[in-house]
Formats: sequence, C-alpha cells, structure tokens
Amino acid sequence: MKLKIKKEILAEGLNKVSKALSSKNLVPVLAGIKFDLTKDGLTLTASDNDITIQTFIPALGNMDIETEGSIIIQGKYVLDIVRKLPDEFINIEVIDDLKILIYTENSEFNLNGINKSEYPAINLDLSKKPVYISNEIFKAIVNETAFASSTDESRPVLTGINFKINGAQLECNSTDSYRLARKIVTLNQEVEESYNIVIPSKNLVEFIRIIDDSEENIELHIFNNKILFKYQNLLFQSRLINGTYPNTANLLPTESFLKITVGISDLYSVIDRASILTSDKEKNVVTLETKENLLYIKSSSAEIGRVEEKMSVVKDNDENIKISFVAKYMMEALRSFPQNEVEISFVGEIKPIILKSVGDDSLTQLVLPIRTY
Amino acid sequence: MKLKIKKEILAEGLNKVSKALSSKNLVPVLAGIKFDLTKDGLTLTASDNDITIQTFIPALGNMDIETEGSIIIQGKYVLDIVRKLPDEFINIEVIDDLKILIYTENSEFNLNGINKSEYPAINLDLSKKPVYISNEIFKAIVNETAFASSTDESRPVLTGINFKINGAQLECNSTDSYRLARKIVTLNQEVEESYNIVIPSKNLVEFIRIIDDSEENIELHIFNNKILFKYQNLLFQSRLINGTYPNTANLLPTESFLKITVGISDLYSVIDRASILTSDKEKNVVTLETKENLLYIKSSSAEIGRVEEKMSVVKDNDENIKISFVAKYMMEALRSFPQNEVEISFVGEIKPIILKSVGDDSLTQLVLPIRTY
Repeated sequence: MKLKIKKEILAEGLNKVSKALSSKNLVPVLAGIKFDLTKDGLTLTASDNDITIQTFIPALGNMDIETEGSIIIQGKYVLDIVRKLPDEFINIEVIDDLKILIYTENSEFNLNGINKSEYPAINLDLSKKPVYISNEIFKAIVNETAFASSTDESRPVLTGINFKINGAQLECNSTDSYRLARKIVTLNQEVEESYNIVIPSKNLVEFIRIIDDSEENIELHIFNNKILFKYQNLLFQSRLINGTYPNTANLLPTESFLKITVGISDLYSVIDRASILTSDKEKNVVTLETKENLLYIKSSSAEIGRVEEKMSVVKDNDENIKISFVAKYMMEALRSFPQNEVEISFVGEIKPIILKSVGDDSLTQLVLPIRTY
Repeated sequence: MKLKIKKEILAEGLNKVSKALSSKNLVPVLAGIKFDLTKDGLTLTASDNDITIQTFIPALGNMDIETEGSIIIQGKYVLDIVRKLPDEFINIEVIDDLKILIYTENSEFNLNGINKSEYPAINLDLSKKPVYISNEIFKAIVNETAFASSTDESRPVLTGINFKINGAQLECNSTDSYRLARKIVTLNQEVEESYNIVIPSKNLVEFIRIIDDSEENIELHIFNNKILFKYQNLLFQSRLINGTYPNTANLLPTESFLKITVGISDLYSVIDRASILTSDKEKNVVTLETKENLLYIKSSSAEIGRVEEKMSVVKDNDENIKISFVAKYMMEALRSFPQNEVEISFVGEIKPIILKSVGDDSLTQLVLPIRTY
C-alpha cells in the first residue's frame, strides 16, 4: 500500500471512525484502524464489539495512489500524527507488509502495523430495502428522546430507543420508567415491512454526532440483530438490544383536568433555581402549584433551607394543581422542545404530567409525579 | 443585617472569595462565606486552612443598607443562588440571627445560616512596609515559573516558588529538581528588608486567576509564616512553606559550547509530534541532534514505532550536539516565553540545557538532560 493523501480529508475520516475505538477493548487488533486502499479510494474501518464505523474517501481529487493494499494501524497514534502534521499532503507507505511509514517533507513516522488477516470479518452488507429518513428528522428524534433512556444496565432494553415502523409512520419511544419521550414522524415512503426494534441510545447519540448537517437522507438497513446506517460515504453499524420493549401506548392519558401554557426558558430557569438547595442534584424533588394565574415552584431541605419561585401562567380553566416531580426530569423534558412555549397537561396529583409543544404534536414528553405525603 | 445589593457586583465578590472554599474541609463553618455589613459596605470572607480571601464591596452606588450585621452563609448555595437570579438587585436579610432570607420579586430563598461567633479569628492585618509589584509583572512571574514547581508533597519546599528580595531586585525560582524556572525583575522601589520566602505555587496561580488586568500595583505584606496580597479591594492571604529552598545559584552554567536560535512555536510543534508515540506522556524522552544547519528531534518506542522530525536552525558556531530530555519539560519551558524566538545553550550532553529569550534576559529556563546510554 502506498499513497499520498490530503491531510484534512484523512484526518476527518480517521476522526469519524475513531469513535468506534474503545480504550477498554480486550481484542488488541480492535485498537487499530483498518486501511483498505483500492484504485477507487481509501476505506477506513474501526470497530469495538458494539459498533462498527466505516468511511470511504474517494480517490478523485483527494489522493495519489501508487500501490493498492491493506494494513491495520494503531488507532490512537495515527489519529494524533495526522492531526498534528502541518503539511497539506501526507504520504503513507507499507513496507514489508507490517511496517508503516508516514512522512511529509520534515516528518517521518515508522509505526508497527498489524496484518490485515488478523482483523475480524465484519459484515457490512446493505439490505435490499432500506428505510429512508431525512437527516434533520433523524437528529431531532435522537436529540429529543435519547436523554430519557436508562443508563442502568440491569434492564438492558431501557437503555435503548424503541423504533416502531408501520407503513409510513415511525414511532420512537424512550423511557427509564420514570419518564417517557415519544416522537412520532411520518416518513416520505410507505415501508413494506413492519419493524419493532430497540437501538442502544448511546450509539445513536454517537452516530448523529459524527454526521454533518446536510439535507441528505439517512438509510436504515435493519437486520435481525443489528442496524446499519448509511449516510453519504459513511457506514455506522450498531447491535440491536434483545428483549421486548415495554408497551407505552396506555401510559399517555387522553384527558386532562388542567392545561397550562408556559414559556420554556422561564419555567426552566425557575425550576433550575428551585433545585439549587440540594446535595443530590439527580433526585431533587420540587413541587409545582398553581393559584389563579400564578405558578409556584417550591422546594425544601431540612439542613439547607427552602425556596419559593413564582411566575405567571396561562391556564385553560379555573382548576388548580399541586404536584411534585424530580426537577432534573422536568428540566430535561422542557429542554427537548425546539420551540419557545410548551403546554403542560395535568390529570391528577399522582398521574403522569404530559408536555407538548403548542402547534406541533410530534413530540410528547411524560414525567411521572412523586408522592410527597 | 439587611441590604439590597446589585446582583452582578455581589456575584463577582462571591466568586472571588469562593476560591478559598474547600470541598474537603473538615471544619463545617469554613464551608461558609462570612458576610460583614457596615455602613461603609459589605465584606465577604472565605478561608480553608491554606488560604484566606477577603473582598470589600463599597456601599456607594452598589447597595442600600438598612441594618448592619454579620452572618455566615453556606458558600456553594449562596453562590449558585446569586448567579442564577435574573434580577438586577437582590435583597438579603438575616432573621432571628440565624435565618437568611434572599429574595427578589419572584424568588425567595430561606437558608440556614451559621452564627458569626463560630467563625475562626483570621488575622488579615497589613504590614507597615509592603513591597509593591506591578500587576503585569507579578502575573508574568507566576505564569513563567509556577509550572516548574513540584506537585509531590514529599519535598514540600519544592511545591512553592522561592521569592528573594534584595534591594530593588526580586529573584524568583521554581524547580522540581528536573528543571528550573528563574525570573529576575527590578522593582520600582528599594526594599529595606531582605526576604527569602517560599510561597505555595498553587496559591499563587489561584491568586492571579481572580485578579483583573488593570495596571494597579499588588502589595505584598510579608510576615514570618504567611504572606498577604492586597490588590484593589481584595485581600489574599497564603501560608508560606517552611524549610530552606535549595540554592540554585550554581546550577546555571556561565559558558556554552553551542547556542542555537529557534522559533518557539516551530520547535514546540516538532517536539509535540515527536512525543506522540508514547504510552506515558509525562515521561516521554526525545533526542535533539544538530547536523550543520538542521535540527533533528527523534524518539522511539519498541512497541509503537519511531519518529524523526527536522527543522532548520541558526547556530552560533560549527559545533554539534546530541542530547536527550523529557519532551514535556522542554515544551513547558518553551511555552513560558512570551516572545517568538528563544536561544538554547548547550554546555555538554549531560549538562543542563538553558533557554533564554533573545533580547530579554529576565527569564531563564533550565531543563536537565536524560542519559540515554
């Protein structure tokens, strides 16, 4: 293998695939990035046991290819080298099948490589009938729901986002059993097959982090126990989580006895201040109470003190509510809406609290109340 | 105690003194910030056993004082409250000597306070004859020398910067026994007494971090076992480190057999790249070698590989040198110079390497070589 390649392009590719390198990987070869050079261009692949990322850099305009070939290079070093070289072009050459020479005019790195035969066979075949989702909508789904997933591995299925596809409808649910985020979108196509899969949330978050903001579609290639996302020249494969996702259909109340409309950033700040007085930010409980057209948020801690915040609120009737919840859950739910205003529905003091944006009902956030008496 | 105070001014004061709050403090009252309100203004004090910070906010234009008094408020909560309140003015009131009410139009915090009598007596008296140093020069001293101090508490005296004042000359030394940073400046005054003290480096770094960039002088009030810095309305007191600082006068060679002049950022980048191939960034050894008008930096690791970098260099004669050192020490020494070019003097392969800026000899950096054979 021998080539001369544009530094910025290579650095960008290495940076993307390096997200699949795990520092705690037990298989040494998986600490490496696989380089495959053909006359068409350079393919970079990295994988841990959870995700695989592959990107293709087309030859045209990006590189001069002298000899095709493959090699595995230690991931963390090659990334650092390429990033820190000041030159516009970088030469990479494999010598004696196992030595890698990376050089520019004033710099020369000799690295020990790993033979390509040691790399595990990873199947990145595409399916025949992918599902297409716009980049923008896919990112919104992940940004608005992933935070509600559990990080507790004792119920693995809750550490993922449940994707259900029926016809042109995609419904995504994410819950840690204390709150639920639901996003329903309509696809631009009727999907023949129905799907009900759970994708690890952290992998989805990683995936949307490495893709750009262009308007191209993302292809979802769904298999039995894995999903492969194709976006431009990038392939991102994740395992699926086994197990039955809890049925969340009946969780959302259909009626309410009081709806309030509030500015998201105002209510967020009020709850944020009300949750200062705690030694445990994760589980701080605040109480929301309405009185006429005012909304009060209160919290207290015997050792530290108590706090009371008020703000004005628009109600849909004269009823009032007093209800307690975990401040962090409500703040994360509020923050998930891209809009400025949210409508909060109450069914009762011990019934789920429902948040929806005014004028866009694709996203629903549910926060369970806490009994305080 | 009862007052109404400008939020931004109070937040700034609390932020400064809070740097003396230690999370691992064993004395509960020291987790608090002491508020002392007189007709002249508000004094805020915080202390751990190492440093004490006090700032005074003059009444005029900043506050309305209704009742004078004192109270101790839990530091981390009051800082968060004041920072997060959106209002321009904040009301603070002590009720029944121990309850603190912090309120604005829509927010009300009730905090448990601590009686002022429980706060330890801290002597912040000024000396009669302070030493004056310009803010700019003082910051330069700390920025250019503190990094060379030791973080190893087994030789406490090396965790500080040695300040020696004789007449109008201030000499500062900082060493961890592998490298030495020396800054010599001339004061605008003849100091009557001679001083030879060691100030903890981390306290000096903390101090320059909380003071602004104005051109006012810093007053150094030096006592037997402590030093008090006065700057504007701020008092910052640190303990001194006991023990005799090693004599560094004879460490700096007076002659050299080769001097090279290099661009600081070029050499920094070259060493930075040469030190990529290591699993231990702290102790990575690189070798510098000159050949005619070229400078080579080399490094190798049996498992990872080897690297060779070259750059052009200006030499004062035809001699050549081959010398090894810890990459991190040389990079930190290079980075300490505010200028673009540095002159590096070599006495021999196992003799100290000396760095000086071209045209400004106030700062000297010394890096010890490493024997590699």
